[in-house]
Amino acid sequence: MKHTAKDLADKIDAVVEGDASIELAGVAAPERASSGDLIFVDAAKHTARARASAAACVILPPGLSVTGKTIIRAKEAKVAFAKAAALLREASIIATGVHPTAVIAPLAKIALNASIGPYAVIGEDAHIGECTQIGAHCVIGAGSWIGDYCRIHPRVTLYANTRIGNRVEIHAGAVLGADGFGYTFGDGRHWKFPQVGIVEVGDDVEIGANATIDRGSLEDTRIAEGVKLDNLVHVGHNVQIGAHTVIAAQTGISGSSVLGHHVVVGGQVGIADHCTLEDRSVAGAQAGIPTGKTIRSGQVVWGTPARPLDRFKEQYVWFARLPELGARIKKLEGQLEAKLGKS
Amino acid sequence: MKHTAKDLADKIDAVVEGDASIELAGVAAPERASSGDLIFVDAAKHTARARASAAACVILPPGLSVTGKTIIRAKEAKVAFAKAAALLREASIIATGVHPTAVIAPLAKIALNASIGPYAVIGEDAHIGECTQIGAHCVIGAGSWIGDYCRIHPRVTLYANTRIGNRVEIHAGAVLGADGFGYTFGDGRHWKFPQVGIVEVGDDVEIGANATIDRGSLEDTRIAEGVKLDNLVHVGHNVQIGAHTVIAAQTGISGSSVLGHHVVVGGQVGIADHCTLEDRSVAGAQAGIPTGKTIRSGQVVWGTPARPLDRFKEQYVWFARLPELGARIKKLEGQLEAKLGKS
Amino acid sequence: MKHTAKDLADKIDAVVEGDASIELAGVAAPERASSGDLIFVDAAKHTARARASAAACVILPPGLSVTGKTIIRAKEAKVAFAKAAALLREASIIATGVHPTAVIAPLAKIALNASIGPYAVIGEDAHIGECTQIGAHCVIGAGSWIGDYCRIHPRVTLYANTRIGNRVEIHAGAVLGADGFGYTFGDGRHWKFPQVGIVEVGDDVEIGANATIDRGSLEDTRIAEGVKLDNLVHVGHNVQIGAHTVIAAQTGISGSSVLGHHVVVGGQVGIADHCTLEDRSVAGAQAGIPTGKTIRSGQVVWGTPARPLDRFKEQYVWFARLPELGARIKKLEGQLEAKLGKS
Repeated sequence: MKHTAKDLADKIDAVVEGDASIELAGVAAPERASSGDLIFVDAAKHTARARASAAACVILPPGLSVTGKTIIRAKEAKVAFAKAAALLREASIIATGVHPTAVIAPLAKIALNASIGPYAVIGEDAHIGECTQIGAHCVIGAGSWIGDYCRIHPRVTLYANTRIGNRVEIHAGAVLGADGFGYTFGDGRHWKFPQVGIVEVGDDVEIGANATIDRGSLEDTRIAEGVKLDNLVHVGHNVQIGAHTVIAAQTGISGSSVLGHHVVVGGQVGIADHCTLEDRSVAGAQAGIPTGKTIRSGQVVWGTPARPLDRFKEQYVWFARLPELGARIKKLEGQLEAKLGKS
Repeated sequence: MKHTAKDLADKIDAVVEGDASIELAGVAAPERASSGDLIFVDAAKHTARARASAAACVILPPGLSVTGKTIIRAKEAKVAFAKAAALLREASIIATGVHPTAVIAPLAKIALNASIGPYAVIGEDAHIGECTQIGAHCVIGAGSWIGDYCRIHPRVTLYANTRIGNRVEIHAGAVLGADGFGYTFGDGRHWKFPQVGIVEVGDDVEIGANATIDRGSLEDTRIAEGVKLDNLVHVGHNVQIGAHTVIAAQTGISGSSVLGHHVVVGGQVGIADHCTLEDRSVAGAQAGIPTGKTIRSGQVVWGTPARPLDRFKEQYVWFARLPELGARIKKLEGQLEAKLGKS
Repeated sequence: MKHTAKDLADKIDAVVEGDASIELAGVAAPERASSGDLIFVDAAKHTARARASAAACVILPPGLSVTGKTIIRAKEAKVAFAKAAALLREASIIATGVHPTAVIAPLAKIALNASIGPYAVIGEDAHIGECTQIGAHCVIGAGSWIGDYCRIHPRVTLYANTRIGNRVEIHAGAVLGADGFGYTFGDGRHWKFPQVGIVEVGDDVEIGANATIDRGSLEDTRIAEGVKLDNLVHVGHNVQIGAHTVIAAQTGISGSSVLGHHVVVGGQVGIADHCTLEDRSVAGAQAGIPTGKTIRSGQVVWGTPARPLDRFKEQYVWFARLPELGARIKKLEGQLEAKLGKS
């Protein structure tokens, strides 16, 4: 959708410097931009890239300048660019209309302006909200609820009774609501513990490709609003994830762990069962958080088993000095032996 | 399926105390139960939760009591609860009948009471056993064999000639029988090594969502009866997994490794190629087991490279004391220098 | 396809010793071979297995011999076996013809001899090359380009505008072109950064089951020719992977990292964002490479944070000796105290 620089700046609380009437039609990296694309830089070292760009308009933070272009001045240039991009670019189309091959159960409720792709299967009593798009080959289990303006990419599976808020985006291959991994051992074998809870996902959540979120066992699994989960993330049964928490690729969270709001979890982190990561805590990539552990609010941890980042770094420095420490002990032993021998 | 407390207790080898005629219709957590739900607690600290519950009947282990309710007394309360749940709850329905959109090859053999969901594709000569349910969008490769009473959730893919036992449950998105990761390097590039073995899965196995189990290269990949694999687990070519072994989410097992029976593997463990984990050994979460390593029967290991848990813990304690050790060495050096200077 | 030993040897630059006219029809492990199967061994300790085999023909490297069989002599026996297997075995059939249930957009261009399986969905303007097979339930996004002789197994998803070279094999459940994990934080929430780049995959690449390769944000994600990615590998936005690089299962590569050619990456490795792994470098299984780090050409690293393998091993040996070092320090302290007390 085309916007003038002025329109755009007004909508993202920014200010235009220079020709505010130029039309913008997209976003790009400086090197790839054509004249109608909006670009941004947020550091002095990148202003030369902006200057050399074909783009006629650049978003800049206070203190930077690029000559010969219209400038949209915003305190947080990258946030402004993200907001502008959302206005300039139409989101990719996942489905248009209800495809005749979609298999929709008689009692499913599909909003009139929702779209369902080829071969999607919508179970009995499922609800699909306004303007929501369901991609090809999705399987939406009976009794599931999907809110408005959601983008469900092809080949997503929702088991029965999964609940999804509004403006949620789920990428291809994700599976929500599969049975949790719960067994109890007796008579030499594992007995399946009942997995009768559901998965609830709040508004504005994004879930990556081939991620898996298990249903609760006797409780529910809950993902609060604004959470972002990367590809191949695993969320176990009964896990609770607070608002605006971000979790990078291939991280796994075991049963009944609780993450607060605005937590940041790196890639390939392992969070064992019954852990608590309080609000705004941070777990570095590949950290391993043992069963039942609590990470305090705002704390940053790394390593397996995870410990405070400062401590990890200090220990790691000493670790690298181990050969030297060994040599110093040996020298002391030699000196002392000589001394003791002498006396 | 409703049962009286007496019926249920008889079937799970337990004993009723109190009104044995009350009817039970489901299972729940104490806080969520209605009067017809069965609950359980297995520790004195939880009896207050049971007492406060609306449930009329509670499974308890010997030594605990909850007043005002029918008690089903069982030595292992959690196992009894799991067994009772399997009797009280009907498993979710994956498919009913053979959907007209299923594409079934002419020579596939589908048991009369098997069910096939919408858009499933069943290859030539495939066999689907009695009462087995195949979910929507499953792809069952030519020549595959699936036993009786299996539950294959939507969007599972079996490559050709995969063999599945009875009462196996496979969750959405799992892929069985893809080519193993085998190449041999020559002339500056990788040549694909033949991957002509198959995957064999025993009875009563459960496989998690988006898990992958590769076919053998010149041998087969074998998963014995009662094995439980969590979501996103990867099993490489020629791997052998013994009976009743349990493997948590995101663990990967490289080619030709052999796991015994009743092995327990935590989440995100990496088992390199040609390893042996003997019967009843345990690998803690995120452990890394190097190529060719053997973990002895009953041994518990942790860390990367994995070592016995006791040793890991001891080393870890010393690791945390490194700064202190460094200070002590420095002090010794100072004292000795003073001493040597004096003499 | 049957070949005589002579035919086969000619085609793989090897030499026959013994009866060159025998017919070969397949490949197998020595223990499983029938007389018409070709086998190989590449170490003296395995020649007994070859001798005991029913196979009439064996590939051997210089210096080994097995009596009573036709020998195909090749400098690199395993490479020769891989090449022979490719000639003897027909690849499994993924699809034949265009299935009537495939949904093909009017402007998609499908080569006349390409095959499309049941329920595949091919988007507008997509291109499917000569002799390429697209499996059941694949979703090929609008504007995507797939070259010649590709093998796309069932249930692969390509988002719009993904580009795939020739002779590429993609296993079931893989997702190419999903949005990268890019957000910028402001006003207490995460704003989606535009993900408008594409994924480009070169010739002769193989991609494992349920792997995920994200589209670029403002740049593209590029996988060069001959790259092999195992199951459940994650490749983030803007990542560049050089020719003939091999990456084992469950490894994750964060945004904008660059891997050279002939790099070898073990399983479950975590490569943070903006890293560089130069040509022919090696990262051991479960290694963790921190943000922005460069691994030099030919260097071998292990551990988290990753360091040169020699250093890792040295430090690890000292790590195991920590309890002993502690005891030696204690002894020194005792001796010195006694000494100082005496003087």
